[in-house]
Amino acid sequence: MVIKPIESVKKFESFTQEIQKSEGYRKPIGFGIARVDRGQLNPNKILQATYPVVNWKENYESAAAFIAALQKSGVEIDFSKSEFVCDVKKKFIKNALNIFCPYVENAFGDNHKNVQVIKNLNQIAKTEGLTDNFRITFIFDDKPPQSVESAYLKLYALSLGKAPLRSLNLTNIFGLLENAAWSINVPIELEWLRANEIELKLNGAYPYINFVDKFPRFLQHIIPTDKVRILDASKVRMGAQLAEGTAVMPGASYINFNSGTTGAVMVEGRVSSSVTVGEGSDIGGGASILGVLSGTNGNPVSIGKNTLLGANSVTGIPLGDGCIVDAGISVLEGTKVFIAKEHLNLILEINPKFKFKYNQSDDVKGYVIKAIELSGLNGIHFRRDSQTGKMLAVRSNRKVVLNADLH
Amino acid sequence: MVIKPIESVKKFESFTQEIQKSEGYRKPIGFGIARVDRGQLNPNKILQATYPVVNWKENYESAAAFIAALQKSGVEIDFSKSEFVCDVKKKFIKNALNIFCPYVENAFGDNHKNVQVIKNLNQIAKTEGLTDNFRITFIFDDKPPQSVESAYLKLYALSLGKAPLRSLNLTNIFGLLENAAWSINVPIELEWLRANEIELKLNGAYPYINFVDKFPRFLQHIIPTDKVRILDASKVRMGAQLAEGTAVMPGASYINFNSGTTGAVMVEGRVSSSVTVGEGSDIGGGASILGVLSGTNGNPVSIGKNTLLGANSVTGIPLGDGCIVDAGISVLEGTKVFIAKEHLNLILEINPKFKFKYNQSDDVKGYVIKAIELSGLNGIHFRRDSQTGKMLAVRSNRKVVLNADLH
Amino acid sequence: MVIKPIESVKKFESFTQEIQKSEGYRKPIGFGIARVDRGQLNPNKILQATYPVVNWKENYESAAAFIAALQKSGVEIDFSKSEFVCDVKKKFIKNALNIFCPYVENAFGDNHKNVQVIKNLNQIAKTEGLTDNFRITFIFDDKPPQSVESAYLKLYALSLGKAPLRSLNLTNIFGLLENAAWSINVPIELEWLRANEIELKLNGAYPYINFVDKFPRFLQHIIPTDKVRILDASKVRMGAQLAEGTAVMPGASYINFNSGTTGAVMVEGRVSSSVTVGEGSDIGGGASILGVLSGTNGNPVSIGKNTLLGANSVTGIPLGDGCIVDAGISVLEGTKVFIAKEHLNLILEINPKFKFKYNQSDDVKGYVIKAIELSGLNGIHFRRDSQTGKMLAVRSNRKVVLNADLH
Repeated sequence: MVIKPIESVKKFESFTQEIQKSEGYRKPIGFGIARVDRGQLNPNKILQATYPVVNWKENYESAAAFIAALQKSGVEIDFSKSEFVCDVKKKFIKNALNIFCPYVENAFGDNHKNVQVIKNLNQIAKTEGLTDNFRITFIFDDKPPQSVESAYLKLYALSLGKAPLRSLNLTNIFGLLENAAWSINVPIELEWLRANEIELKLNGAYPYINFVDKFPRFLQHIIPTDKVRILDASKVRMGAQLAEGTAVMPGASYINFNSGTTGAVMVEGRVSSSVTVGEGSDIGGGASILGVLSGTNGNPVSIGKNTLLGANSVTGIPLGDGCIVDAGISVLEGTKVFIAKEHLNLILEINPKFKFKYNQSDDVKGYVIKAIELSGLNGIHFRRDSQTGKMLAVRSNRKVVLNADLH
Repeated sequence: MVIKPIESVKKFESFTQEIQKSEGYRKPIGFGIARVDRGQLNPNKILQATYPVVNWKENYESAAAFIAALQKSGVEIDFSKSEFVCDVKKKFIKNALNIFCPYVENAFGDNHKNVQVIKNLNQIAKTEGLTDNFRITFIFDDKPPQSVESAYLKLYALSLGKAPLRSLNLTNIFGLLENAAWSINVPIELEWLRANEIELKLNGAYPYINFVDKFPRFLQHIIPTDKVRILDASKVRMGAQLAEGTAVMPGASYINFNSGTTGAVMVEGRVSSSVTVGEGSDIGGGASILGVLSGTNGNPVSIGKNTLLGANSVTGIPLGDGCIVDAGISVLEGTKVFIAKEHLNLILEINPKFKFKYNQSDDVKGYVIKAIELSGLNGIHFRRDSQTGKMLAVRSNRKVVLNADLH
Repeated sequence: MVIKPIESVKKFESFTQEIQKSEGYRKPIGFGIARVDRGQLNPNKILQATYPVVNWKENYESAAAFIAALQKSGVEIDFSKSEFVCDVKKKFIKNALNIFCPYVENAFGDNHKNVQVIKNLNQIAKTEGLTDNFRITFIFDDKPPQSVESAYLKLYALSLGKAPLRSLNLTNIFGLLENAAWSINVPIELEWLRANEIELKLNGAYPYINFVDKFPRFLQHIIPTDKVRILDASKVRMGAQLAEGTAVMPGASYINFNSGTTGAVMVEGRVSSSVTVGEGSDIGGGASILGVLSGTNGNPVSIGKNTLLGANSVTGIPLGDGCIVDAGISVLEGTKVFIAKEHLNLILEINPKFKFKYNQSDDVKGYVIKAIELSGLNGIHFRRDSQTGKMLAVRSNRKVVLNADLH
């Protein structure tokens, strides 16, 4: 069944409202149309999904239009599942074009991007044909992704900053994504390379492989904001999030998926999976912030604003604002640090929520505590006395702006 | 002289046995046919040799077939030398095809890969012509390589896991290999770039150079096993060996030639030339394992199984199984470490071969010894007391599985 | 007005001398003709300038010839400004060709490179046409660059070793250069990618972006000397300088613009902006040398000859010849180090200019001083006593060759 062209914006609105009220209908959390790369040997393997436009908790009318266009072209959608993915067929495009009719003319530039997608697909369908390169994805519940397409949609939502870091369920994503050899944006099955190795090599046609991984790189899919710099594409995995002004240097840096920055940050070290770093902080050359899979007992590490991790330092605990970890210092959960009494008082001043039980009248110079007890505190400077080897926590000389609601 | 097509597998077998019994004949340790890249200005310079199939201590009948095909096409092979390399000519291919006749039909997929090479070459000879792009290489003795072709054959043997790491003579390989500018798999003479710089640049045709080195990258030649991941091709040099399950992250990692992993290892640090790392070990972000050329007095470092090198740690001594070097700790040959008596006893328990002379009744808490004396021991945890700055060796909490033959 | 062909070398010489004597004429410090990449959306944005030949404090006759060719083709040059940049037009080329007439025939190979540029441009003008791809640049004063073209000319002068590191005024270069997405040597405006994202992605034509930065990479513009190796192009920014024999490994290394090596150096760590490293030194894996923007209070760090920075060490002060910083050690300006008296005497011996006020008869074992006071000294070994945690400076065991003029 073909939908007739809708004649006005008003009619489009009532049409999509109608759809949304239909029995069982659910608003998707996210949806989009992707061009997919399939396995060269096994076309049922989706190796990559590229979304030109990602909708995340937005554009519910377009979602309704897409769903109606699918249903009217004979596709049944099971809203009881956490996600729905299917091929994009000519009939669907025709229907969608008719539903979006009042917007088609103005769909260019920043306007009506979902409609632009349909217009482009219509063009492709006319010329080279759609083949089976296109898929449409809806996510209804934030459950573990069930398909490569929905996994990519979530990675996009993170990398585009449409979903906060650590907010999405990515359980089993390593199980879903295929390991592939990537050649200039194109994923190649390793098995295909093996099957064709002799012919490719003898003919001088063996492809340039820039990496082998389950994830693509951030820059294959995401156009960063103007002030972001990534000096080597290998340093940022798809699914990372980089706030405006973030610079990623090529020395020893890396930003894994589901980790990144929430403000302008200079990154010259490792931001492991699940780590977030705040505005104005500086991750020095070779500094390592440990991730949930590497030494933090599953506690994701957040680094606050205006915090400095010195070159080759290691941080395994969350840090607040205005902290310093000196170059070459490792602060792990179990690291014992000494805090002199006067510094303890200064630290308590700027960390009203920090409760440290001690007796001001104790006849001691200070206390030795485990670094994990200082998790998330502001204004701490971790250093080592270079003459005694003693690890110290003192009040840093960096500014800490306290939120009003802490008082 | 042209060999007539051999009619049956049985006749092939007797033919190749005959060849192998001929006077002076020697079985090659390794052999294969390579497509070579020659210098743009000086075609006598071999810049790269690409082997679609590598034979290493195997397929001696195919070797005999190749040798016969060469000899019958007029090529004289001096078996007294450590290696033999020559051009692949049409006559040789014709002869080889006739010798392999009983296998030609079934040579596809995983069957008869050497025959597949000959079939493909025959096709190329018919269509575009062989020019001087192809070379055949035999290595008879593991002496210092005398040609780029044999050097590459050895690097392949290592990278394919056909020869154990550190088992091959690579003396003077740096002298043999030409430094080249690499552009998408193609090595370019620097002198050629200089001679053509003006024209290339003004025409907007200056090539994309991804690196300048004597060695190519691992991924230009080797298809890794399915579970290997290499997130940046620059991180693994040709001649490295990566066991199944090894992941190489893009932060600060590097695996040099003649080094690598013998089991699944997470690599986020530097595995210098001649270093091996065992199953289940974890090379933390920025960790450095020193190589024979950098601080170990020529002693190659082996790291055992299930050993953890913390982020930004440095290891200059061999370690056994189940060891830990804490994040940020450097353990060099001369580093003095303190072992408390009770830990010494625990360490001796799991290291039956370790002889440490001391007197249980000594009235001391422990002993200070040089790290090199702990070389290769199992279950050692190197750490620093963060309040006294003292470097300690204690019994690690990681499991050590003792080989039965140690008891 | 068109210049007639000059008939002899002698006449060329008198012609260019005449030009140089004309009123207001100034010799340029540097000049050259570049092919430029312009913005895809905004062609007034110069994204990159590629110079096939760079003249720096040399070839003043060619400069005069170029200037005359411009003036005679109607271009007015304001010599009172610090630089001049304009389009390369057909008339200019014709004039330049006529002025260089006596050299045209012999302009190939290493001879008359500026003339080769003109010959090539003449060819391009005849065939595809010049369009607006070519620009000619003169720098008269070393003031802050006013154009992308002059900024690139300075970066070339540094990277080609024609100007010493830190010798040129690069003020505001970050403000001048556009941030771009680089695809195989071609800079792309981020805004253009955004405007075309939907079409590019749906058609499988989204470009391969290898990095996003304001600067290109060294290897996009510079052909290194034969013995230089750069194992990953991302590791060296345009504007860096690499002396013969320098090797840059792919692990954790990086060489920023306006920094580099003045002799053969093994680089496995970070050489920050404004840092120089001398002949025979070794920057260990993950070692960090801090730059003016990261922890040195604006003091550029020079590292002398034959100095060793251990793996994962950090250096924030200048070092002389024959120094050692042990693996994992951080030496910052404020780091307190202990020098035993006998070592102090040895250090004074090889550092005649170092004045350290102390009393030989003091009844102390040594002195604790701040590392910054040891800035630039030769033969210092920074280490930590692994049993007491004390940072020490001792006389290194590396050879220090004293300049005769120090005595």
